[in-house]
Amino acid sequence: MTDSDYVEVEVVGVGHGVDNKAVVLLKDQSDRQLPIWIGHCEALAIVQRLNKEFDPPRPLTQDLAVNLWKRLGGTLTQLRIDDLWEQVYYSKLTVEQDGQSVEIDCRPSDGIAMALTAEVPIFVANRVFVESSREEDEPEDE
Amino acid sequence: MTDSDYVEVEVVGVGHGVDNKAVVLLKDQSDRQLPIWIGHCEALAIVQRLNKEFDPPRPLTQDLAVNLWKRLGGTLTQLRIDDLWEQVYYSKLTVEQDGQSVEIDCRPSDGIAMALTAEVPIFVANRVFVESSREEDEPEDE
Repeated sequence: MTDSDYVEVEVVGVGHGVDNKAVVLLKDQSDRQLPIWIGHCEALAIVQRLNKEFDPPRPLTQDLAVNLWKRLGGTLTQLRIDDLWEQVYYSKLTVEQDGQSVEIDCRPSDGIAMALTAEVPIFVANRVFVESSREEDEPEDE
Repeated sequence: MTDSDYVEVEVVGVGHGVDNKAVVLLKDQSDRQLPIWIGHCEALAIVQRLNKEFDPPRPLTQDLAVNLWKRLGGTLTQLRIDDLWEQVYYSKLTVEQDGQSVEIDCRPSDGIAMALTAEVPIFVANRVFVESSREEDEPEDE
């Protein structure tokens, strides 16, 4: 898959739905929207990151993960949301260490919170937008 | 501070209190107990780790952090809860990489969830037990 198959998105915000679920809304430059249903704890982490004035007294879970990756010589460079299969979104974080790329599977909600923490771009595969628009139900992140 | 100033503890369980707070209870071999008030999301993460039959379909936040530390050559070896100051508990995770120790500050709740994920020991400074028993209020982890 080439880079042209992915588009950069921004995180519009987080909302709350029924069934103890929250939703994070992403959109690309063409205003195509991608809603991903996520858990409340992950929603809270994303909301905290979107609030630029939020300044926790202690490192939160995402700070801990990203800070320790840095201490181990790893630099988070991007999140890619690359698949939607059987109602579940899949994504990967990329970390660079000593000129090598390390990719790791993650839930999109964790990945979005980590990407916002490290201020790195989020990309979505074009086919994920297409498949999401075909879904009648609400695809989730786990 | 020498190793004899620390004792290994086990995680007894998690309970729920008032004011939207949860508590995780630690105890040492002499049955000295240490309650730490934590957030609900961190409590959920700890409960999930204590439930040996819990088998999430996707990596959770703590799995993501620990797995990526491993991929970067880091091995989590222990959690130390080393201070209680102005009603807040402090702790550090130790990660070994290439024969070097990397220590990182964390909230005890995150540290406990990470230690349970990686199945490494948790130590508490003796003076933290002493100071905790003197507190009239409920010290927290942030």
